[in-house]
Amino acid sequence: MVYIGVDLGGTNIAVGVVNEEGRILAEHSVKTLASRHWSEVIRDMGGCILKALEKGNFKAEDVLSIGIGIPGVADQETGNVIFCTNLGWTDVPLRSELQKYINKPVIIDNDANVAALAENYAGVSAGCKSSVFITLGTGVGGGIVIDGKPWGGSHNRAGEIGHMTLIPDGVPCTCGNNGCVERYCSATALIRMGKQACMGYPDCQIMKLCGGDVDKISAKTVIDAAKAGDPVAERIFADFTKYLTLLINNITAFFDPEMIVIGGGVSHAGEMLVQPIRDQLPRYIMFKAIQAPKIELARLGNEAGIIGAAMLGK
Amino acid sequence: MVYIGVDLGGTNIAVGVVNEEGRILAEHSVKTLASRHWSEVIRDMGGCILKALEKGNFKAEDVLSIGIGIPGVADQETGNVIFCTNLGWTDVPLRSELQKYINKPVIIDNDANVAALAENYAGVSAGCKSSVFITLGTGVGGGIVIDGKPWGGSHNRAGEIGHMTLIPDGVPCTCGNNGCVERYCSATALIRMGKQACMGYPDCQIMKLCGGDVDKISAKTVIDAAKAGDPVAERIFADFTKYLTLLINNITAFFDPEMIVIGGGVSHAGEMLVQPIRDQLPRYIMFKAIQAPKIELARLGNEAGIIGAAMLGK
Repeated sequence: MVYIGVDLGGTNIAVGVVNEEGRILAEHSVKTLASRHWSEVIRDMGGCILKALEKGNFKAEDVLSIGIGIPGVADQETGNVIFCTNLGWTDVPLRSELQKYINKPVIIDNDANVAALAENYAGVSAGCKSSVFITLGTGVGGGIVIDGKPWGGSHNRAGEIGHMTLIPDGVPCTCGNNGCVERYCSATALIRMGKQACMGYPDCQIMKLCGGDVDKISAKTVIDAAKAGDPVAERIFADFTKYLTLLINNITAFFDPEMIVIGGGVSHAGEMLVQPIRDQLPRYIMFKAIQAPKIELARLGNEAGIIGAAMLGK
Repeated sequence: MVYIGVDLGGTNIAVGVVNEEGRILAEHSVKTLASRHWSEVIRDMGGCILKALEKGNFKAEDVLSIGIGIPGVADQETGNVIFCTNLGWTDVPLRSELQKYINKPVIIDNDANVAALAENYAGVSAGCKSSVFITLGTGVGGGIVIDGKPWGGSHNRAGEIGHMTLIPDGVPCTCGNNGCVERYCSATALIRMGKQACMGYPDCQIMKLCGGDVDKISAKTVIDAAKAGDPVAERIFADFTKYLTLLINNITAFFDPEMIVIGGGVSHAGEMLVQPIRDQLPRYIMFKAIQAPKIELARLGNEAGIIGAAMLGK
């Protein structure tokens, strides 16, 4: 028997046939073409699932369940997508509509929860009793796993780590608040800090790497400059890891997971990102004699979306 | 069959015989006399349990388990108290020592977790799938309950809400960090803010209520002055509830419990404390169209320690 995992993104619908251990046995993907009516997108999702099964020589009877990771919020009970900004969806009956094409149990969850679950089954946090996944990309997302199950909260709003307040009255956030984690711990934050630094230090390595055009600064520009030993970029990155340490200390004080996993684009910085956090955390945490959560980099790449979605059915 | 709940405090050991529904059937208490060797304290605890059973006409055979709430940190696996500052205990084999006097399963947990569990069984959060208890006293403590079980974290350090950072680089905390929740949301914080206000506004109601001696200001002084409509005290209390709202927004974004329960001495302020939080929270939370956690006052008083400890065995 197998599980279907669907990674529903703004650009592609990626489907995988996944075994018990979280290994992908067959895959297929199609364009999302999100501007269409949702019923057409879901029809193509159904077709994509059948195609992936066919590629792997599986039949619908082999399928235990279908899990779907979405960049939005789902109602676990009804199987409706409450909203999904990238796709322009509000209150879409994803489960019941998909079951017209393949009548199996359908479980839908947020893509950060799904990535957290993937790491918990087939990645760095495999076997952990509890883990918190933090994804550092354009924004900051999060997922909590307890005893092998994603914790979505009592109103499907858990794991919104990016919108915990880190600095009250700090940098204004797109959500309407000030000082959200997302404004200090994302790729967007590194870019903002990089641009600011270039104004004060026009001779810095960041300015050289972007060819003098600060609009070309990416998170990677700042990371590369810091790796090259540029003192300005190093200072930015030190601030960045300090903010992350503050966040991780708060998560530790409140929830104390066995492991905190860091993924997303910024995590490609590697050990240079996590080692300073490991070094600084003991300075902040209570009960210094007791073990603290392990801080690790995510191991799964793009396939996390499919694997985690499939494991929603376990 | 009954459960034993033990509330181990710095002053008293309070024992209750508790039924399935969390109702206390018989009680007995003795002085802790904490300066003695731990073995003597535990011997008296054993005697106190037997006495409580006798008072209710129960026998040791009627007891399913013994739960103990401690003002400290316990190792759930070994049954040892890792440390308990009030009692001066470090690495005390509480479970095995107590079993010399009554050989039943012994479960030990932090007193804030125990209070959270009590409310979840017999108080305001009864029947909630998940709840977070915040106790606002001299310090700030917390307890998390998921599916009727206390969540102590993977290293017994969860629920340390008082030492989440609220204001980076803020007021120095006894723990060595700056800007901890405890420095802004406790009785101690109200006292500090009341004293500061009296320096600037010597004609304020707080100053009158303390008879001109700022060292006599308690949390109640500030609360009473705010209740009486003193604008200085009202402003302090508005700041206080704003800090609490920030904390509760962070807990909501991360964990999204069904209910957040507020207890401890400051919670005697009543609706005046929780209503401003309920009013302000919608301004901060993400996904404003989705329901937010309910914010309620704790209902159980002193008996919470016994009831919650007993329910550790369920």
